[in-house]
Amino acid sequence: MIIINVTITITLTITIMNIITISDMMNINVLRLDHRSKRDARITTHVCLTARAFGASKIYLSGEEDEKLMKNLEDVVDRWGGSFEIQYKKSYMNLIEEWQNNGGEVIHLTMYGSQVQDVIGNIRDSSKDKLIVVGGSRVPTKVYKKSNWNVSITTQPHSEVSSLAIFQHMLMDGKELDLKFDDAVFEVIPTAEGKKVNIHDQ
Amino acid sequence: MIIINVTITITLTITIMNIITISDMMNINVLRLDHRSKRDARITTHVCLTARAFGASKIYLSGEEDEKLMKNLEDVVDRWGGSFEIQYKKSYMNLIEEWQNNGGEVIHLTMYGSQVQDVIGNIRDSSKDKLIVVGGSRVPTKVYKKSNWNVSITTQPHSEVSSLAIFQHMLMDGKELDLKFDDAVFEVIPTAEGKKVNIHDQ
Repeated sequence: MIIINVTITITLTITIMNIITISDMMNINVLRLDHRSKRDARITTHVCLTARAFGASKIYLSGEEDEKLMKNLEDVVDRWGGSFEIQYKKSYMNLIEEWQNNGGEVIHLTMYGSQVQDVIGNIRDSSKDKLIVVGGSRVPTKVYKKSNWNVSITTQPHSEVSSLAIFQHMLMDGKELDLKFDDAVFEVIPTAEGKKVNIHDQ
Repeated sequence: MIIINVTITITLTITIMNIITISDMMNINVLRLDHRSKRDARITTHVCLTARAFGASKIYLSGEEDEKLMKNLEDVVDRWGGSFEIQYKKSYMNLIEEWQNNGGEVIHLTMYGSQVQDVIGNIRDSSKDKLIVVGGSRVPTKVYKKSNWNVSITTQPHSEVSSLAIFQHMLMDGKELDLKFDDAVFEVIPTAEGKKVNIHDQ
């Protein structure tokens, strides 16, 4: 062990702007491509719940319309609070174009994209609304071309669920861990052992 | 906008210990509880791939033995490199006890646990090997009691896949994003648009 004593003199120039939290600054939505009702029900459910828990305000589902899945998710939102929306969108390229025409940015998560650790600083620095595109089994070339960013979460195969979680976590800079959801029936009280849940009558 | 100029004098005492990277310090394994072959095949596959991509060296699967799933994962490891192991473990409580008897720590991921942002510093500071337990549909009380840590990733319902990814990401402090996998056939070259993959003959 080495002990070093150092004296440093630092001159700081601090610029104080109006401080805005990230949730005030940008709206985060997610677009899930190419849902297949039978095969993808659980994975798409996990994608939707992850989007909500990590700070998105809305998810668009494309592919097969799956009313049962959407109903189940709306029930979760009713019980766990907040105002997360779920909407079916048949023609997702229109949504991508509308989003950009309204001044928003589109980030397509793909294992082939730029590495998240290299680009997240630039993505976070822009206050534009974010549409995060989560692929399905086939993602057409036009999605790669139209997206403002194609971003990879590791260069290894894993899961659209883990990719979305890590991207939202890095976009929110960890602030999503302290998110509060209004008007919840169920509220978990964190505890080192066991389960504590407050149930609020509505 | 306000501009403030400040001059600060700081006296630092820096203690330099032997510096070891996290991958030298601890071995990370994952235990997936209560796998059901029909219902959980895709989610468990995503759990396994996430464990591997984010720096675990091995996953133990309990519940129903699923040889097809294990074979598929071994094929992924062959193609994408590294030495990730998959092992079926019928009696997982024995594994938890053995792990602790060998000096390792057990972290059970549950939405009811202590919040990850409050405990990750302490967990990361310990160089002991880590067994991360990912729940299934029913997690018995003894898992909560035996675990060194019960940890929640948000207090909201989402996914064991996103919980595992965020926990490993925070445990590795982002270093998993730069992990290299030896002897891979497929190697993705990150690119802003399109797909670039190097294929290495074996």
